[in-house]
Amino acid sequence: MDNKSSSNSFFIEKEIPEFAENIKNLVAGFLANDDINASLSTTELAEKFQFKEIPQCGVSADQFLDELRELILPHSINTGSPYFIGHMTSLLPNFLRPLSELLTTLNQNIVKVETAKAATFYEKQALAMIHKEVFGLSDEYYDECASNPDISLGIITSGGTIANLTALQCARDLSLAQFGNVEEDGVLGALEAGGFKRSVVLGTHLGHYSLVKSLGLLGMGRGNYIEINSDENQGIDLVHLRRELEKCRREKIHVAAIVGIAGTTECGSFDNLEGMAELAEEFSVYFHVDAAWGGALLFSEKHRNCLQGIKQADSITIDGHKQLYLPMGIGLLLFKEAKTAQVISVEADYIIRKNSWDLGRVSIEGSRPAKVFYLQAALKLFGREGYGSLLDSCVATSRQMSELVDSQAEFELVTKPQSNIFLYRYIPEKFRGLEEFSDDVNSEIDDFNIRLQEIQKDKGRTFVSRTKFSHLGTSKAKTVLRVVIANPLTEIEHCREVLQDQIEIAKDLKA
Amino acid sequence: MDNKSSSNSFFIEKEIPEFAENIKNLVAGFLANDDINASLSTTELAEKFQFKEIPQCGVSADQFLDELRELILPHSINTGSPYFIGHMTSLLPNFLRPLSELLTTLNQNIVKVETAKAATFYEKQALAMIHKEVFGLSDEYYDECASNPDISLGIITSGGTIANLTALQCARDLSLAQFGNVEEDGVLGALEAGGFKRSVVLGTHLGHYSLVKSLGLLGMGRGNYIEINSDENQGIDLVHLRRELEKCRREKIHVAAIVGIAGTTECGSFDNLEGMAELAEEFSVYFHVDAAWGGALLFSEKHRNCLQGIKQADSITIDGHKQLYLPMGIGLLLFKEAKTAQVISVEADYIIRKNSWDLGRVSIEGSRPAKVFYLQAALKLFGREGYGSLLDSCVATSRQMSELVDSQAEFELVTKPQSNIFLYRYIPEKFRGLEEFSDDVNSEIDDFNIRLQEIQKDKGRTFVSRTKFSHLGTSKAKTVLRVVIANPLTEIEHCREVLQDQIEIAKDLKA
Repeated sequence: MDNKSSSNSFFIEKEIPEFAENIKNLVAGFLANDDINASLSTTELAEKFQFKEIPQCGVSADQFLDELRELILPHSINTGSPYFIGHMTSLLPNFLRPLSELLTTLNQNIVKVETAKAATFYEKQALAMIHKEVFGLSDEYYDECASNPDISLGIITSGGTIANLTALQCARDLSLAQFGNVEEDGVLGALEAGGFKRSVVLGTHLGHYSLVKSLGLLGMGRGNYIEINSDENQGIDLVHLRRELEKCRREKIHVAAIVGIAGTTECGSFDNLEGMAELAEEFSVYFHVDAAWGGALLFSEKHRNCLQGIKQADSITIDGHKQLYLPMGIGLLLFKEAKTAQVISVEADYIIRKNSWDLGRVSIEGSRPAKVFYLQAALKLFGREGYGSLLDSCVATSRQMSELVDSQAEFELVTKPQSNIFLYRYIPEKFRGLEEFSDDVNSEIDDFNIRLQEIQKDKGRTFVSRTKFSHLGTSKAKTVLRVVIANPLTEIEHCREVLQDQIEIAKDLKA
Repeated sequence: MDNKSSSNSFFIEKEIPEFAENIKNLVAGFLANDDINASLSTTELAEKFQFKEIPQCGVSADQFLDELRELILPHSINTGSPYFIGHMTSLLPNFLRPLSELLTTLNQNIVKVETAKAATFYEKQALAMIHKEVFGLSDEYYDECASNPDISLGIITSGGTIANLTALQCARDLSLAQFGNVEEDGVLGALEAGGFKRSVVLGTHLGHYSLVKSLGLLGMGRGNYIEINSDENQGIDLVHLRRELEKCRREKIHVAAIVGIAGTTECGSFDNLEGMAELAEEFSVYFHVDAAWGGALLFSEKHRNCLQGIKQADSITIDGHKQLYLPMGIGLLLFKEAKTAQVISVEADYIIRKNSWDLGRVSIEGSRPAKVFYLQAALKLFGREGYGSLLDSCVATSRQMSELVDSQAEFELVTKPQSNIFLYRYIPEKFRGLEEFSDDVNSEIDDFNIRLQEIQKDKGRTFVSRTKFSHLGTSKAKTVLRVVIANPLTEIEHCREVLQDQIEIAKDLKA
């Protein structure tokens, strides 16, 4: 009885004031600090998380708060620090924090209108707003969409990976439709009926790993992502793409899709989407654009031109939790034609009924939260111009920093920022001024940069990430440092400090 | 410049006090009301969400708050109302609401330790805690897991659907491994090498639709979900299962997995997991248990026996946002053997590195939020006994209500609650007392119940859901009303009111 009443009290009491007050203080404390995290290696931290059983009786709220305060917060990553310029995760606008409490309170389930009445229409509306931004169809068309449950302009997903997966699923099913019903009968029958040995997707080696992962999931095989070379600007080599498309036709290899990247994860580069769209039309293949990173540039009058041709895509991924500044866990998939999603639609008596408004009919995910509240809030409070100015300022800072890197003897700029990502590396003193670096030297420099990045990370004051990169996707990959300026509060002075930290660390590092 | 400064101010100011205060009031107002939603049909509501463009300049916070207050909240579903007893979405414990603000503040990205340092280990720890609860391995084993980045006891997903999908992906790949590398080369080669025309998954017709959907995604085909009959308790008919397994062997049909259900979505019934485990062993097939709904009964000493045999499963889905009382958007997948997930692992230089702690290596999703905070909080604050007593009380209320239904002439109890879900239907007066219902009469009763449920839903005071149900999965399906008692605050008096509302509505309805 006692236990029942204590666990029940968490439901009976609508508020938990002392706990809420403590959490509020933790939030304020976390936001007040610019350090990235406490100095501790992951190996040391791992030891603090030894196995523990679920307690038989609940612990007190204070005990749990102590755990958060002592064990979790100091070792969480301050993704909002202006010195955290290595990943695509940034500070969020202040209005999203209180809004998340409302979202949890409502606890709507978007799978079905019976568990998410207004939120269903709110999501449809938000998707139409963004669809118009990209594809620019007529207001009459969007009015019709708003009042027709069978039209799906897109889907809100848990992230870009599920969005890309959904797009490639549609591409697979539609492209093979003349040979069989893939959803119903699987890929084997359709491929055999078409006389194909394999079905492939083409994109550059800079495509996000979710594409390759999706091919594994979809039963097409990761090995069937055909890597197209990139050009000197890390965009797709259209000549190579055409050659591979011709080869597929000649050798009777089925092409499910070509994928253009608008803002590569590694260096923020853009494929020539217009050129790809032309080839897609010529070869009658599905054209998906992964604009998870770069899609938000639609809002920038200055930089929108990077996306030239995007409206010819059959589907587009844009991540909410990247440059739309939304909390982790929201991606968008948009379809040029509302009928595309029908190929993957599903129904179930108890949950998503035919002819209903139930959004679960075309989503890979089932039950899902009403993340649309975040999206609607940000679209409305920023407006086009607000988003545009945030993005412009990040791009500008990124250019300034790349110039700073280029001007310092310690560093070699590897790729210039086409948007707000660029690559560089530290050159240890003894190698500076060499005309060319041998493979052995490069591998010493690789090793140096790896150690440099690890130390900077463990120190916890400033942060850039690292990756491997090869020009044109053909030469031997080098380890490089990677800067992502996604935080609107990061200014050139912060960037200077990040570089200064590296120079200091390098002094103690033996090449 | 003006626009830049205004959008920037949402980042510079760490708090937005007036907006936060307003949201707090909206939260309190929503929680204070037991009505489910304002009286309005979806068609009428749809009209309120006509197409609008993204504003050029941002609107004021007040304008957005007005939209929430007037358009969104009155038409959101009060999933926490004690009268909302038709879906698996319930009131949440009070501590999760403030916690969600912390989660949004931290904005950790679990894909990679560099963006989620403590949260990575917190997630591993939570998974081990639940793994022990199910599989009960030794503390030494769990200690080893805690300090070894290459051991994956499970994955936190955005929901049960992605958990089931991941499980079936593992099953597909492992079961075909002797014929080919499915992840790398696709299903075609492996099926051909094994001489198979198809690969199937077996489970009852009461299996969740995510299973069928997963087969479509995985390239195996939705039609390759083989429906096994259920017995008189809506559990799997083991004789039929054995017969189908033998048939597959005989006809050289590849079996990727058998799936047992612990708590069916439609009526809360349980398959005989022990019997299924024996068959899985005898036929050497992968055994997945979808315990999305029923898994939490592990915490109930009274009802744990429903799950007898679950520890012999190769993998288990448990939904966090169902009976673990967590916010929408969290599912769990547990692997009996830590090596299972290796078959789907993936790496990428810039994001999830080999030999790292990066959890993104084995998740279908990429970037994802630190939902583990919710899970850890609830496991610790409730403890086993707290969870147990919440579940016991829901099961008890559900039994009481089913007895009430059974005792009233207006209703026919269709399935008794094995846990906290049951089915019934309203019998219009003119059909009461008939020995048997002809197909024509049943279809009239179907129609009556559909109208009854729609009216009750639109009125917005009380709610049960509806579905179609056939005993044993063989007879003609009838429309039934479905009760899910998931809210610990729902008492028999609330249930009585729900039924009374139906009786009142029925009075005005012509059969």
